Amino acid sequence: FTILLVFNVQAQNHPKLNLTKAGVAKIRAELGKVPLFDASLAVIKEEVDAEIALGIFVPIPKDFSGGYTHERHKRNFLILQKAGVLFQILEDEKYAIYIRDMFMAYAELYPKLPVHPQERSYARGKLFWQCLNDSNWLVYTSQAYDCIYDWLSKKERKHLEKKLFIPFANFISEGNPQFFNRVHNHSTWGNVAVGMIALVMDNDDLLQKALYGLKTDNLEVGMKDNDGGFIKVEGQKVGFFANLDEPFSPDGYYTEGPYYQRYAMYPFLIFAQALQNVKPEFKIFEYKDSVLLKSVTTLINLSDSDGNFFPINDGQKGMSYYSRELVTALDIAYLFGGENPELLSIAEKQGKVTVDDAGLEVALGLKEGKALPFIKKSLELTDGPKGDQGGLAIIRKDGLELVFKYAAQGLSHGHYDKLSYSLYTNGNELVQDYGLARFVNIEQKGGGNYLKENTTWAKQTIAHNTLVQDETSHFKGEYEIGSQFASKKYFLDISNPNIQIASAKEINAYKGTELHRTMAMIKDESLTYPYVLDIMRVTSDSVHQYDLPFYYLGQLMQTNFKYNSPKVLQQLGEKNGYQHLFEEGKAKISQENSTLNWMSNDKFYTLTAITAENDEIIFTRIGANDPEFNLRRDPGMIIRKKGVKDALFVSIIEPHGTYSPVSEFAVNAYSAIDKMTVLLNDEAYTVIEIRFKNETSKVIAIANLDNSENSKHKLTIADTIYQWSGPYYSK
Amino acid sequence: FTILLVFNVQAQNHPKLNLTKAGVAKIRAELGKVPLFDASLAVIKEEVDAEIALGIFVPIPKDFSGGYTHERHKRNFLILQKAGVLFQILEDEKYAIYIRDMFMAYAELYPKLPVHPQERSYARGKLFWQCLNDSNWLVYTSQAYDCIYDWLSKKERKHLEKKLFIPFANFISEGNPQFFNRVHNHSTWGNVAVGMIALVMDNDDLLQKALYGLKTDNLEVGMKDNDGGFIKVEGQKVGFFANLDEPFSPDGYYTEGPYYQRYAMYPFLIFAQALQNVKPEFKIFEYKDSVLLKSVTTLINLSDSDGNFFPINDGQKGMSYYSRELVTALDIAYLFGGENPELLSIAEKQGKVTVDDAGLEVALGLKEGKALPFIKKSLELTDGPKGDQGGLAIIRKDGLELVFKYAAQGLSHGHYDKLSYSLYTNGNELVQDYGLARFVNIEQKGGGNYLKENTTWAKQTIAHNTLVQDETSHFKGEYEIGSQFASKKYFLDISNPNIQIASAKEINAYKGTELHRTMAMIKDESLTYPYVLDIMRVTSDSVHQYDLPFYYLGQLMQTNFKYNSPKVLQQLGEKNGYQHLFEEGKAKISQENSTLNWMSNDKFYTLTAITAENDEIIFTRIGANDPEFNLRRDPGMIIRKKGVKDALFVSIIEPHGTYSPVSEFAVNAYSAIDKMTVLLNDEAYTVIEIRFKNETSKVIAIANLDNSENSKHKLTIADTIYQWSGPYYSK
Ligand SMILES: [Ca+2]
Ligand SMILES: [Ca+2]
Ligand SMILES: [Ca+2]
Ligand SMILES: [Mg+2]
Ligand SMILES: [Mg+2]
Ligand SMILES: [Mg+2]
Ligand SMILES: [Mg+2]
Repeated sequence: FTILLVFNVQAQNHPKLNLTKAGVAKIRAELGKVPLFDASLAVIKEEVDAEIALGIFVPIPKDFSGGYTHERHKRNFLILQKAGVLFQILEDEKYAIYIRDMFMAYAELYPKLPVHPQERSYARGKLFWQCLNDSNWLVYTSQAYDCIYDWLSKKERKHLEKKLFIPFANFISEGNPQFFNRVHNHSTWGNVAVGMIALVMDNDDLLQKALYGLKTDNLEVGMKDNDGGFIKVEGQKVGFFANLDEPFSPDGYYTEGPYYQRYAMYPFLIFAQALQNVKPEFKIFEYKDSVLLKSVTTLINLSDSDGNFFPINDGQKGMSYYSRELVTALDIAYLFGGENPELLSIAEKQGKVTVDDAGLEVALGLKEGKALPFIKKSLELTDGPKGDQGGLAIIRKDGLELVFKYAAQGLSHGHYDKLSYSLYTNGNELVQDYGLARFVNIEQKGGGNYLKENTTWAKQTIAHNTLVQDETSHFKGEYEIGSQFASKKYFLDISNPNIQIASAKEINAYKGTELHRTMAMIKDESLTYPYVLDIMRVTSDSVHQYDLPFYYLGQLMQTNFKYNSPKVLQQLGEKNGYQHLFEEGKAKISQENSTLNWMSNDKFYTLTAITAENDEIIFTRIGANDPEFNLRRDPGMIIRKKGVKDALFVSIIEPHGTYSPVSEFAVNAYSAIDKMTVLLNDEAYTVIEIRFKNETSKVIAIANLDNSENSKHKLTIADTIYQWSGPYYSK
Repeated sequence: FTILLVFNVQAQNHPKLNLTKAGVAKIRAELGKVPLFDASLAVIKEEVDAEIALGIFVPIPKDFSGGYTHERHKRNFLILQKAGVLFQILEDEKYAIYIRDMFMAYAELYPKLPVHPQERSYARGKLFWQCLNDSNWLVYTSQAYDCIYDWLSKKERKHLEKKLFIPFANFISEGNPQFFNRVHNHSTWGNVAVGMIALVMDNDDLLQKALYGLKTDNLEVGMKDNDGGFIKVEGQKVGFFANLDEPFSPDGYYTEGPYYQRYAMYPFLIFAQALQNVKPEFKIFEYKDSVLLKSVTTLINLSDSDGNFFPINDGQKGMSYYSRELVTALDIAYLFGGENPELLSIAEKQGKVTVDDAGLEVALGLKEGKALPFIKKSLELTDGPKGDQGGLAIIRKDGLELVFKYAAQGLSHGHYDKLSYSLYTNGNELVQDYGLARFVNIEQKGGGNYLKENTTWAKQTIAHNTLVQDETSHFKGEYEIGSQFASKKYFLDISNPNIQIASAKEINAYKGTELHRTMAMIKDESLTYPYVLDIMRVTSDSVHQYDLPFYYLGQLMQTNFKYNSPKVLQQLGEKNGYQHLFEEGKAKISQENSTLNWMSNDKFYTLTAITAENDEIIFTRIGANDPEFNLRRDPGMIIRKKGVKDALFVSIIEPHGTYSPVSEFAVNAYSAIDKMTVLLNDEAYTVIEIRFKNETSKVIAIANLDNSENSKHKLTIADTIYQWSGPYYSK
C-alpha cells in the first residue's frame, strides 16, 4: 500500500521537462483565447491526426538521409513529440495510445538491431546512419515519454526503459565514446539525448554522464571524424557543460557559425528548460553569464534583414530564424530570460509558437500587444571560450550589412577564410560568401551529405572574399594548423553611425606574411547611400603572388579597362579551389583606378579599386571541374599582384543607383567617385584619399602599428597636416 | 464683338481630350473622398511641385537615351502633362505658369534646332535622337496644352502653335514620312502625336494625316529601318486606323508581342479617349469589334501570375501590368468599356489611377467595393489582322502556365521561334524564353539600345525552346522570308481542365520539312501537380541534324545517364546563335528514357524524354563569345538527332516535389514517371504511353493528318483497340 502511494506521487510529477503540470493547467485555461497559440496547436493537431490515421511504421533501418527509412524514423520522432503535447493539452487518450504503441514497436525492434548498415559515419547509429540522428530521436521521444509517463502502467514503463530507452542511451554514450565525449554539435545532441531521458526517468547515473561526459573513453588524442574534425584534444573537458564552455564565446557566438549554432540551439535550449524545471539548483540559464540566453539574441543578429543566417563556414543558404529550432529557442529565451519584448516581434514574424509553457507566454505577450521591434544594430561578436579568439564585426547602415570575419577556425565546419567578408543589401547577397557545397537532405545530391566540392571548393580560401597567397589556402588548408590560431582584432569603432570601422590582423595564415584588413562603412552627407571602404595590407618577408577575389552577384554592366576574353574557357589553376574557376577574361592594368559597374536586384553598384601598373584583373566563373553540376555558376573578379613582397589592396564598394524594369528609368547609374589615391603607405601609416564627382573628398588614415585609443598621431603629406588620436583618422 | 464671343466659346471647350470639363467638375466635387484617386493626385503633386522648385531646363539636344539631355526632355514632357492635370483640378495658376514658361522656352529653342546630332536612327528627331521620342513628347505635351488652352491668351496660343506645335507636328509627319507612314509602333506614336495636337487646336488637316497618313510619301517599297524592319510594304494602308487594322488580331493581340503592345497601349488608348471625347462620331471604341478594349484584357492575359508580361519577341523581362502605360490603358478601358469589375482588381494591385476622368471612375469603383478578381484562364490569342496568322495558346492550371507560340513573325521585333514555348510556375520562369539582349535605358550597356547579341543570339532559333535544323535558324534568320509566313494551328482543346491541348504545324521555317508540335497540360487525379507533355514531330524530304533545346532555370540535381564533361569549355557551333553557347557536357544515349531532375525556387522538376540509340544530349551554358558580359550565363540542354529525315521528340516536364531550406525537408524529390514509350508513330498517328510509378498509365494519340472534330479513328496496337473521334485521344 505504501509502496503504491510512493509510486503514484512520483508518477504524478510528469510532465516536467518542457511542459509542466502548472504550464498545462494554464494552457488548458487559456485554450481558445490566445490566437497564435491556438493556431500553432491547430497545426500540430492536424499533422498528428493525419499521421495517426496513416498508422504506425517502424521499418528496419537501411537508408541515408533522404531515403525512406531515414525519413520515416525522423518523422516518427517529430510526430511523437507533438502527440505527447496534444495528449497533455487535449486529454485525448488516442494520442497516448499512439505514442505507447509506437514505443512498443521500437522496443520490439531496437534490441534486435545491429549498427546501421551504411558505413560512412565515424559513429554509426542503429536507427540512422549516424549516432547524431539517433540522438535527435531520443531528444524528441524523451518529451513524448514524459507526456505519457503517468498514463503508462509501471509495467509498461519498465518494459520500455529496459528494452528501449536505457539501451538506447547507453549505445549513444558508452557505446560510442568517440561521439559522446567530444566538444562538437554531435556530442551536444548526444549529451542532451541522454540528459533528457535521464530527467524523465530520474536516472542520476545517466544525468551525470550527460552533464560531465563519460569518465573513461579510451580515445586517442588526435583521432578525427569522417568530416575531418578532431575527436579528442589534449585536456578536453566533455559533457553538456563542456559543450557550453568551449564553443560559445562570452557574446553567445558559437564557433561553428550560425548554421550549426541554429542546429545546436534546439538541444541546448530544450535541455536547459528541462533542467531548469527539474533541477533548478543548477541555475542553468545563469550559467557563464547567461550565455544560453545571449546566444538566442546573437543568432538573430547573425541574420540579414529578412532573417536568413549569414552562410559563413558550412552553412546552407536559406536557413533562417524561421526554422523550428529558432521558434523553440526564442520561446524558451523569452520565458526564462525576462520576457524581452523585442523577441516578440521576431515571434510574430515566425508566425508560430511552440505548443508548451514557453510558447503560451510568447503568444500571450503578443496578444497583449507587448511586442517591440527587434532592431539589428552594428555589433562585434567575439569568438573563443573566453572571447579572445578574434570574432566577427557585423556593420549595418541603411539596409547595407557587412559581415567581416576575423574569427577562429570554427571546428571541423570552419572554412579557410581569415579576414574575409560578405555584403548584403536589404536582405539580398551582394558580395557573397559561397556557403557550403551540399544539398542538405536532397538525396539526389550525394545522399544529401557533404559533397567533395565542399572540400575542394567551398572551404578553400579562393572561394572567399579574402587574400590568397601563391594560390594556396590559409594554413595550407590544413585543419590541424588552422585550428590552432585565430585572427586578432586590431581595432573596432562602431560608435559613429557615419563611419563604422573594424580592423584585424592575421599573422599565421601564411608563415612570414602579415595580413591587415580594415573595413569601414561610411555614410557621407552628400551621398545618398553608404559605401564600404576595404583596405587589405599585406607585408611579407619574401616575394609572392597575391590574389584578392571579389564575388559580386549580378550582371556586369561596364568596366573602365580593357581585357582579353578567351574564346575557350580554361580552369584558372590546378588546386586549392582554383581548379573550380574558369577564367572568363584577363586585363593587364595600366590605370590608377579600376572600376567594375554592375547591377544586382535592380540596383547599380560600383567597385572602385586602386590599381598599379603590373596588376592583373581576372574575371572568373565558378564551375570548372564540376561534372555533377554541384556548384553554382557565379561570377567573380580577382585583383592579382605578382612578384612582390608587400601589397596594398584598396577598394570601395558603392551602391549608387536604381533601375526599374517597369518604368525603365535608370537613376544614378554611375559611381559617385572621381578618384581614389594612396597618399601614404609605410610601416606606420596607410592614408587613402577619395575624391568624389560632387567635389567633396575624404581622407582615411590607419595607424598600422599602434592601435591604442589614446596615442596621438601627426602626419604631413603634401603640405597638409593630419593630426588625430586613436588608431584611425577620418575626415 | 461677335468674333470675340465665338473665340471665347471655342476656348471654353478645353480641356476636352483626357480631362473634360464635366470630368473636372466631378473630380473637384469628389476631392478628398476617393482614397486611391486622392493618393494618386498627391503623388503627382509632390513630383510636379519638386520639379517646379528646381526650375525649367530646356537643354540643347545632344545625348542618346540614358544621357542628360535625353532624360531631361523626357522628364519635361512627363511633368508637363501632370502639371496640366494639377492646374485643372487644383486651379492653382502656378502650374499653368510653369507649363506656359516651359512651352515658351521650347518655342524659343525648337525653330533653331537642326536634326539631332546622334545619327543612328532612320528617322532622327530634333529633341531626341529619334522621331519616336519626339512623338512621345508631343503626345504628352498636347495634353498639357489642352489643360492651359483657355487660360492662355490668344496671342500666346498663336505664338506657341506657330513656333512649336505646328512645325513639330509637321516635322514628325511630312518631314519624316519613313517614320510616319508605316505600320509600326513608331508610326502609332507619330500618328497619335499629330492627332492629339490636332484635336487640341481643332486642326482638321493634321487630324486627317493622323488618322489616314500622308497622301504621298515617295517611299520605296522594301526600305528598312535601323532595326531591320520594313518601312513600306506593297499596298500598305497608313495612319492611325491602319495601325489598328494591321497589327491587332481580332482577339486584341498585337503582333509585336506584349512588351511592344504595352508600349503602344498608351498612344492607342489615350488618343482613343481624346477622339471619343472630341469626335464621338468615329465611335472609336467600337472600331473593329471593340479591338482596343479587348486589347487591354488580352494584355493582362499575356502576363504571368504576378503580372509580368511573357517576354516573347523583343521583350524586356520585368515589364508588367504595373507599368504607367497599363495604368492609363486599364483606366480608360474601364470607363469606356462598360466598367468591367474584373479590371478593378488589377487597378487595386497597380495601387494607382490616372489623374483624370477615367482614373476617378476606377477609384470610385474600388471605393464602392465593386472589384471582382481577374481570373486568368487558358485561352488562345490569334495573330494577324484577320486572326488567320497562327497565334498563341496560353494554358494554365494550378499555377503552371504554358505559353505555346505559333504566331506570325511579329514585325521587326519578332524572333525566329516558330512553335517555341516557355513555362512558368507561380509567376517564376521555369523553362525560359530568353527575352531580348538589351538593357533598356541603361546607358552603360550600348546606350540602352539593342545590343548586337540581340541579333546574334536572342533572335536566333537556338535561343528558344524549339527545333533547329542543321544549326540554322528558321527562315535562315531572314526577316524578309519570315515575315511572309505564319505557323498554323492544327487543333486546340482547352475545354477539359484535366487535359488542355494545343497543336500546330510549321511548314515554311525549313523548306521541305514539316514541324508538328503538340503540347498538353495534363492533370491526373493520382498526381499532385499537372505536367506538360510535349510532342515535336519532324518530317522531311532530306537528311538533317535536329536539335531541340530546353532552357530550364535552376540547379541540375541528377540525370539518369552518363555524360562527358569537358575540362575546357568551347563554343558549340560557329553561327546562328550556336557561337554563344558553351558545351558543358555531352552524352551518347543508350537508354530509352533520359531524365533531367532539377530544382528551381525550392521545387523539384523532372524532364523525361523518350530517346533512342544514336541521340546525343548536350549540356549548354549561354555566354560564349560575349566579351562584354551582355548575356546571362543560363543553362540549357539540347537533345540532338543526327543523320535522319524524320524525328520524333517526346518529353514530359513534371513538377513533383518541394524543398524547404528552412525545414530542410525534401518532399517527392523524384519523378512520378516510370516509363514513356512511343506505341506508334507513322504518317497518320502518333501514340504515346506514359506509365507512372503509382501503377497508373496514360495513352495519348494524335491524328497527324486529320484535325477534324468529327472524324472517327480506330487503331489496334498490341491487341488493344483505341477508338475515338476528333484529332486526339487521351485516356
Ligand atoms: Ca536574404
Ligand atoms: Ca517575366
Ligand atoms: Ca514573374
Ligand atoms: Mg555533420
Ligand atoms: Mg565560406
Ligand atoms: Mg526601337
Ligand atoms: Mg525570344
